[in-house]
Amino acid sequence: MAQPPVVFGADQIREFIAEHFPQAARFPHRIDLVEPGRVVLRWLYTDKGLRPGGTISGPTQFTLADTAMFYLVLAHVGPAGLSVTTDANLHFLRKPKPADLLCDARVVKLGKHLVVGEMKLFSEGEDEPVTIATMTYSLPPGARRAP
Amino acid sequence: MAQPPVVFGADQIREFIAEHFPQAARFPHRIDLVEPGRVVLRWLYTDKGLRPGGTISGPTQFTLADTAMFYLVLAHVGPAGLSVTTDANLHFLRKPKPADLLCDARVVKLGKHLVVGEMKLFSEGEDEPVTIATMTYSLPPGARRAP
Amino acid sequence: MAQPPVVFGADQIREFIAEHFPQAARFPHRIDLVEPGRVVLRWLYTDKGLRPGGTISGPTQFTLADTAMFYLVLAHVGPAGLSVTTDANLHFLRKPKPADLLCDARVVKLGKHLVVGEMKLFSEGEDEPVTIATMTYSLPPGARRAP
Amino acid sequence: MAQPPVVFGADQIREFIAEHFPQAARFPHRIDLVEPGRVVLRWLYTDKGLRPGGTISGPTQFTLADTAMFYLVLAHVGPAGLSVTTDANLHFLRKPKPADLLCDARVVKLGKHLVVGEMKLFSEGEDEPVTIATMTYSLPPGARRAP
Repeated sequence: MAQPPVVFGADQIREFIAEHFPQAARFPHRIDLVEPGRVVLRWLYTDKGLRPGGTISGPTQFTLADTAMFYLVLAHVGPAGLSVTTDANLHFLRKPKPADLLCDARVVKLGKHLVVGEMKLFSEGEDEPVTIATMTYSLPPGARRAP
Repeated sequence: MAQPPVVFGADQIREFIAEHFPQAARFPHRIDLVEPGRVVLRWLYTDKGLRPGGTISGPTQFTLADTAMFYLVLAHVGPAGLSVTTDANLHFLRKPKPADLLCDARVVKLGKHLVVGEMKLFSEGEDEPVTIATMTYSLPPGARRAP
Repeated sequence: MAQPPVVFGADQIREFIAEHFPQAARFPHRIDLVEPGRVVLRWLYTDKGLRPGGTISGPTQFTLADTAMFYLVLAHVGPAGLSVTTDANLHFLRKPKPADLLCDARVVKLGKHLVVGEMKLFSEGEDEPVTIATMTYSLPPGARRAP
Repeated sequence: MAQPPVVFGADQIREFIAEHFPQAARFPHRIDLVEPGRVVLRWLYTDKGLRPGGTISGPTQFTLADTAMFYLVLAHVGPAGLSVTTDANLHFLRKPKPADLLCDARVVKLGKHLVVGEMKLFSEGEDEPVTIATMTYSLPPGARRAP
């Protein structure tokens, strides 16, 4: 499948977030990869978001997925206006390990008004996803030319 | 519709959370209501979870909905084992006002293995929901007798 | 909550469907109610969509919910262009009875580009929903003035 | 990722459906592939489920995805009791072409009580999905030994 080109790279995303979303910039996260149609985001393991039993909480997983989706939109649409999440669907499949959590986010539709992304969350070193998610972002008028 | 009885009240929930989920206890939240089939949870407005433009972020809204769902399960099943979220679906409809955010959570199914809840989030004083959500919790075997 | 006005009534919907969607017109269904913000649609019980055990199938329930959502959009936006479903989320809670199935569909957001509806399906005479659903429709440009 | 073994093959599924689900057997569909963790189902193109403009309707797509999910469960759990869909989430991304529609269904979780599957629907010969879906099936007690 032909992947959409990256129009805003990892360094540009970092600078944009540092300037406009200082709170997101403080999340313990790191961009591992930005390539056409895809962003991989890493949540650095700390015991801060832990539930009893040592697992990473649902809200922390949502934050990771939502941030990955935002970076996926930035990477492929650019910062031409604030886009917003319109829907999110998550299935929590397994408990994450006490390790870094990776979110592999891919574009499944890059439309004029809507961007749909698919995310899989993995504990580092594991190959079965702990959580799968789908999110839709709505773009402001003019943010993007017709596909 | 006949509503399931409350088996674990607001004070019991607060004590249970304080003891077992100290991090959740530090969320700026308050239980407004626990009644058969329903829990209302309030997120106290601060500017901590704000996005540019002054709105309460998606992750903060997810945290509120997930916490409300957890309390809804505790209220109607009790603390007999740790239940876990299996799926969550959210539609973000409008931007929250800079005000307390209320989550009105209702049981739509209280099964032997699964509990399904429906949540509506409102900015205080508004009557149109900012976000609607559905969540499913899986109960451990024996947590609850057959419905 | 202030409900959006009906701009296209039950008779107009029936005529529009008969003319443009003859296959939908043959579904065994009937419009029970169209009022501001709400449409109630009835699926007439037959044993055609039955699964073993006499229950109405998931696909038949989806067809009912999707048709109700379409009529909800028609009722509040009018037929100014073909809108399309962008997402659907369903939770199947209980088995329907061998009886007419009612879908109570309500507008939760009527935006310029997106309409979000919430549906509850009930077996006639029962007060616990068998299925709950949320659907989003995307409107073509110009179908509706800004809300 | 280690895939779960097939315990009930394509011929067994066909016989089981013909005997127990004669209505499903009449759907214009064909099993293209059953392999560990995966089922590919084909909907044979006819103009029966068409919407204006020649596209395959949402309800037909749901029927295909739901049938593929059922076969995925049969293939990996066997027919030891009737399982039921508990939730379905679909994102409709593009209009299907007037061609056969393929549903590629994969197991993402095969638990003791729940099976979660991920589906992508493609028009034959195209490589961009027209629809993505996630479904959960609940298994009756004893249908499957602990994973």
